[in-house]
Amino acid sequence: MSTDSLTDSSLTGLSRSNPAPPPAVPVGCEEDPAFPFHRGGKLEVASSVPLRGRDDLSLAYTPGVARVCTAIAESPELVHDYTWKSRSVAVVTDGTAVLGLGDIGPEAALPVMEGKALLFKKFGGVDAVPICLDCTDVDELVETVTRIAPAFGGINLEDIAAPRCFEVERRLRDRLDIPVFHDDQHGTAIVVLAALTNALELTRRKPVDLRVVISGAGAAGVAVAAILLAAGVVNIVVTDRGGALHPGRTDLNPIKQTLALTTNPTGVTGSLSDVLAGADVFIGVSGGQVEEEMVAAMAPDAIVFALANPTPEVHPEVAARHAAVVATGRSDYPNQINNVLAFPGVFRGALDVRATGISEGMKLAAAQALAGLVGEDLAADRIIPSPFDARVVPAVAAAVADAARAEGLARR
Amino acid sequence: MSTDSLTDSSLTGLSRSNPAPPPAVPVGCEEDPAFPFHRGGKLEVASSVPLRGRDDLSLAYTPGVARVCTAIAESPELVHDYTWKSRSVAVVTDGTAVLGLGDIGPEAALPVMEGKALLFKKFGGVDAVPICLDCTDVDELVETVTRIAPAFGGINLEDIAAPRCFEVERRLRDRLDIPVFHDDQHGTAIVVLAALTNALELTRRKPVDLRVVISGAGAAGVAVAAILLAAGVVNIVVTDRGGALHPGRTDLNPIKQTLALTTNPTGVTGSLSDVLAGADVFIGVSGGQVEEEMVAAMAPDAIVFALANPTPEVHPEVAARHAAVVATGRSDYPNQINNVLAFPGVFRGALDVRATGISEGMKLAAAQALAGLVGEDLAADRIIPSPFDARVVPAVAAAVADAARAEGLARR
Repeated sequence: MSTDSLTDSSLTGLSRSNPAPPPAVPVGCEEDPAFPFHRGGKLEVASSVPLRGRDDLSLAYTPGVARVCTAIAESPELVHDYTWKSRSVAVVTDGTAVLGLGDIGPEAALPVMEGKALLFKKFGGVDAVPICLDCTDVDELVETVTRIAPAFGGINLEDIAAPRCFEVERRLRDRLDIPVFHDDQHGTAIVVLAALTNALELTRRKPVDLRVVISGAGAAGVAVAAILLAAGVVNIVVTDRGGALHPGRTDLNPIKQTLALTTNPTGVTGSLSDVLAGADVFIGVSGGQVEEEMVAAMAPDAIVFALANPTPEVHPEVAARHAAVVATGRSDYPNQINNVLAFPGVFRGALDVRATGISEGMKLAAAQALAGLVGEDLAADRIIPSPFDARVVPAVAAAVADAARAEGLARR
Repeated sequence: MSTDSLTDSSLTGLSRSNPAPPPAVPVGCEEDPAFPFHRGGKLEVASSVPLRGRDDLSLAYTPGVARVCTAIAESPELVHDYTWKSRSVAVVTDGTAVLGLGDIGPEAALPVMEGKALLFKKFGGVDAVPICLDCTDVDELVETVTRIAPAFGGINLEDIAAPRCFEVERRLRDRLDIPVFHDDQHGTAIVVLAALTNALELTRRKPVDLRVVISGAGAAGVAVAAILLAAGVVNIVVTDRGGALHPGRTDLNPIKQTLALTTNPTGVTGSLSDVLAGADVFIGVSGGQVEEEMVAAMAPDAIVFALANPTPEVHPEVAARHAAVVATGRSDYPNQINNVLAFPGVFRGALDVRATGISEGMKLAAAQALAGLVGEDLAADRIIPSPFDARVVPAVAAAVADAARAEGLARR
């Protein structure tokens, strides 16, 4: 028979050995379009090479493939040239901090990881694979990701609860020679810095003169504080449910203890409401609530980034009564702070130069590139590009690649 | 801007932050078409849902995806309905027994695993992901595969060295509720049994009357012996480099000790040449060599399966001077014993009914279905269907699904 009849689509249909019964739809979700949309999942693995018949198969598999394997065994760096490693990323979660849903486990996290993989492909041309781990211990997470790393060009950590996410990332960065990036931390931090850079230009202030309050000392809060310090902000106060982090607090985990020492230079204490009075910038990554009078008590020309999703810490229209610039995580208001502005370009750039890691410099470069795209359009309701602006990924990728080269982290 | 411009292809091109230099081609391989064919790898991850703009993205990712995650957290079995788990398989190797190349490591094994994933998709409509593990210890392999299992509907073990492959598979089958299948063992065994079934029909013999010699006590040899015993063959002698396995041998690992007890009912000893004299069937899965006179000394109407690849234990034209039926692993001679006749349909059938495992009965059913496809075409040079026969996967899948249901291993 002709091999031409062996198209993927014909076989996928033909080979079903039984008619699939319709899937169960949870009670109350019958009208929700998300369920039919998700039926059968959102990803597939496809061939990126022609497979027209026996000759192509004898190159893609035995005997032809053996010569490629032998070449890589002899010259390991060739794995980047002759496999998908140069464009594949594992999207790794343990399912403990999924969206706003919390610890729902690895299987319930899979739809988010599939969605993340779609965004990687659509925005960055990166081939991402969901890896949902059935373990939550730091040692086990680090071991497992280290062991699966050979087939991937990068590791995107996703929705892993704080504080373990910090140690997992730090140890993986030490052990692996490919980019490791916890998007909940650094994706958020890059976009926040980009937006803040433009908000400062608009309101004619400098990082060094600011007093910034970050509400939330989880993954995003810790990373935002770190990137703002790296960008020259001096006075940052981070709050958690117990109020301002300061060295006198006895209820802090080691990560928060460190944060208390590296931020809060004037040693303020008190509640979020206390420390927000007179502050220039509020960055909410907590899911807590901020009352209108708290925004009203901020300094003139206040900047409010209320990033909790789907419900911002303060409604953007309420914040705008008192603040000069307001941003949220929502797509239905101006200035959407969305990680998709960062991670596709960051990985695209890092993979393109086969970077051995993602440095602070590469993240700062990504933020600068992102901020620079707004240009003459800069306005209070336009401090950050749209996620659908096609210039975003190329600009971020180029900046990240250049920074990797400048720091000696590029393999080509 | 319009979101219509955000096609994957345009972005993939657009987002390259630097022109890719041409890859290095190993010296001596400049004319080998396998290298340009493999450039950049062979797989991609693609969307299986429409992504036309913001509305689709808000279903595929936040906020829509959160409702699907919540539903799965409440009813875990829904992961099969609303993620790719119902059609995804991890192709897992540790790189220790890759093709005929041996222990070349996980990165050099990646081109084979990508090729295997292509075959899974092309022949079975199964979405397979290469997982190349940077560990070789049995405990570590079992742990790691167990931890990554949540996002996959099945585990295909590949090119893991014997004897550790046996324990890895056994322990994973015990721990996981999804199909686990070491293809080097069971894929080979299924196709051998199918071919042998037809060869016996052609030469009018029954399993119970045969004397079978299997050369090779690695993954394939052990599995072929097991499936032949299950199919009613009584007299099997397995040989390794030390000759026939028998309980008096003191140089056997535990797997071979067990094999010595479950086979060789008459307690024969001696070299492959010794035990092959008068035997009805030779199955070579060793890579060793068989001289013409050894084939000539077999019983009348001998059956010779010389499956070493790319060089069979005995050339098929030489074997045909003395044997009634000859098969090899090569596509350029009749009767190609090729695993691709088994694994796509086995997984397709198991996934279609959400089987909790792959039983001996499911493997036997696969072999019977495969043998049955030859039908009236049965001849000495036609004991097994072509890998390109489009009836193969549906027939194997249906038989496997039916067997799973009959044994209570189907979840639907």
